[in-house]
Amino acid sequence: MDLERIETPAVLIDLAIVRRNIARGQEHVGALGMAMRPHIKTHKLPLIGRMQIDAGAAGIACQKLSEAEVFAAEGFADILLCYNILGAAKLERLQRLARAVNLRVVADSERVVDALAEAGSDLGVLVECDTGLRRCGVQSPSAARDLALRIAGTPGLRFGGLMTYPAPDNPARVQAFLAEAVELCEAALGPVPCVSTGGTPAMATAGQVPAATEYRPGTYVYNDRSLVARGACTVGDCALTVLSRVISRPTRDRAVLDAGSKTLSSDLLGLTGYGMLPDFPDARIVALSEEHGHVEFSQPAKLPAVGDLVRIIPNHACPVSNLTDVVHLHEGDSYLGPQPVAARGCVT
Amino acid sequence: MDLERIETPAVLIDLAIVRRNIARGQEHVGALGMAMRPHIKTHKLPLIGRMQIDAGAAGIACQKLSEAEVFAAEGFADILLCYNILGAAKLERLQRLARAVNLRVVADSERVVDALAEAGSDLGVLVECDTGLRRCGVQSPSAARDLALRIAGTPGLRFGGLMTYPAPDNPARVQAFLAEAVELCEAALGPVPCVSTGGTPAMATAGQVPAATEYRPGTYVYNDRSLVARGACTVGDCALTVLSRVISRPTRDRAVLDAGSKTLSSDLLGLTGYGMLPDFPDARIVALSEEHGHVEFSQPAKLPAVGDLVRIIPNHACPVSNLTDVVHLHEGDSYLGPQPVAARGCVT
Repeated sequence: MDLERIETPAVLIDLAIVRRNIARGQEHVGALGMAMRPHIKTHKLPLIGRMQIDAGAAGIACQKLSEAEVFAAEGFADILLCYNILGAAKLERLQRLARAVNLRVVADSERVVDALAEAGSDLGVLVECDTGLRRCGVQSPSAARDLALRIAGTPGLRFGGLMTYPAPDNPARVQAFLAEAVELCEAALGPVPCVSTGGTPAMATAGQVPAATEYRPGTYVYNDRSLVARGACTVGDCALTVLSRVISRPTRDRAVLDAGSKTLSSDLLGLTGYGMLPDFPDARIVALSEEHGHVEFSQPAKLPAVGDLVRIIPNHACPVSNLTDVVHLHEGDSYLGPQPVAARGCVT
Repeated sequence: MDLERIETPAVLIDLAIVRRNIARGQEHVGALGMAMRPHIKTHKLPLIGRMQIDAGAAGIACQKLSEAEVFAAEGFADILLCYNILGAAKLERLQRLARAVNLRVVADSERVVDALAEAGSDLGVLVECDTGLRRCGVQSPSAARDLALRIAGTPGLRFGGLMTYPAPDNPARVQAFLAEAVELCEAALGPVPCVSTGGTPAMATAGQVPAATEYRPGTYVYNDRSLVARGACTVGDCALTVLSRVISRPTRDRAVLDAGSKTLSSDLLGLTGYGMLPDFPDARIVALSEEHGHVEFSQPAKLPAVGDLVRIIPNHACPVSNLTDVVHLHEGDSYLGPQPVAARGCVT
């Protein structure tokens, strides 16, 4: 692969690693008896979503309506939209989308259920549960049951089950919440059609949440430095790397890269530093300007020179996909070509 | 202004405040006897660049070649590119651009000067000086003089002066470096055509750097929470706000917004929290997911409800401009319309 032909900074995706990550994730989730529903937020590429479906995924998950619209237009027919939809314009778009594909959505309050009623016509609505993350979600299993009843009693809506994005480090709590919520919902409404959980950080302990019937991982498809740090994968499992050029070596122990927060994002995810340079293990990306990566070396013997190309594994792959118009696909050393990031910037 | 007609999250720009900020900045820099050269990285909009030129700016500054290409295509004829340009493809683009507009560029090493020689034909090159920020730049005034001599002695290049992005809190050090570098360069080469410094944080103390002949501020045009925190401006001087909808109120003291790091960025700039809600002074944006803003309230009496719209002043305006395809222009309460962010995503 002639990296010199790629303008830097550039986001590279190794499809050989992607394929392996997809197969592994599918096997892991399948072995637990759960349906696989990858979250497309990590790659935002119909091409890779199609690889996930071909490997056995039941459908996809999206966070925003505009992401779902992009994937629906590309032929994805089964979409879970893990977000409270509100506002007249969005409800109209939701209605249109629900006519075109098998769409389900979530709610965590009566206000959202009532809004969805305006858009619904046999629309499946899952109750979002806060099982410990402290983001969206009803606060107790009985509140989940109450909202399920409200959904079931609302014309145009149908109770679709339970959904959570779990805090990764307390599967017992997630299981306790979901199991009790399932029991209460079953007593009130009969069988619960789906219990959806997700997240790559919690994937290794997904077996400890047997109440779940479906798993929605996102980052597993690319992996990143945060997952290497958790021990969830190795450096060799990281499919997304950022190609960057050294533009300055102001001192013996410092280098400046042409990739800054506009390429790598400022996400820390609890880590120290803003990414790793696999070929320079003693390098630390200590700070980012928008267009500069500030690197310090503790062992100034092995250093890149001004003009050299380096590869970076970012802390968090998902925002890197969102920051670039195009990714460059390759398979190991074979360059395949650029690919527009179809669902980049979809925040509405 | 009927905010309900704008899909959230959305970036709003108040042109009335922009106009006032431009006039104030121009007056301040002009009163110091310096040329004004706004950095377009904050707005990335030819429309606002034109307002800056009309107010008296000598030209614009860009960080990346692709930004300069966008603005050159829109008729901006005087551009300082504050970045080391390396790599065959970029040098070719630089050469094309230098034929079309009055372009100057920077260098901080012989390696960069030698690369520019391939692209140059009477190309003005400023020596970038590290006056304390520890990013790019030569490390001493004598190194600046030596590199100036190298530029002046390279066919196709012409010594264009000195350039620095200063650490904001030590103007005395910046002045000492630049004054000595000017003296050394003058002794070796005659008059120094330009001494360019910049940065909105250092603008208030620009008068303490009389060696400078030109000022390049970026964020002053919009302002943001980081500048409010520095005392550089008031909340009322912030032209960029993010319109966001409350999508969840999971508990009495928490709310979740539909703007996360994909809209606000994860930039902290040394602050605590990820933005401020001017209408809810006791609200703290304690965390961001990609699509969720996690808000906590200490005074649960005054709270927005699910479905309500709120305005956010982000920590750092520049990455917010880079994350959105479109901004919504308004003047106070009059909505003017959407505007594509022409130079969004220009990292190469």
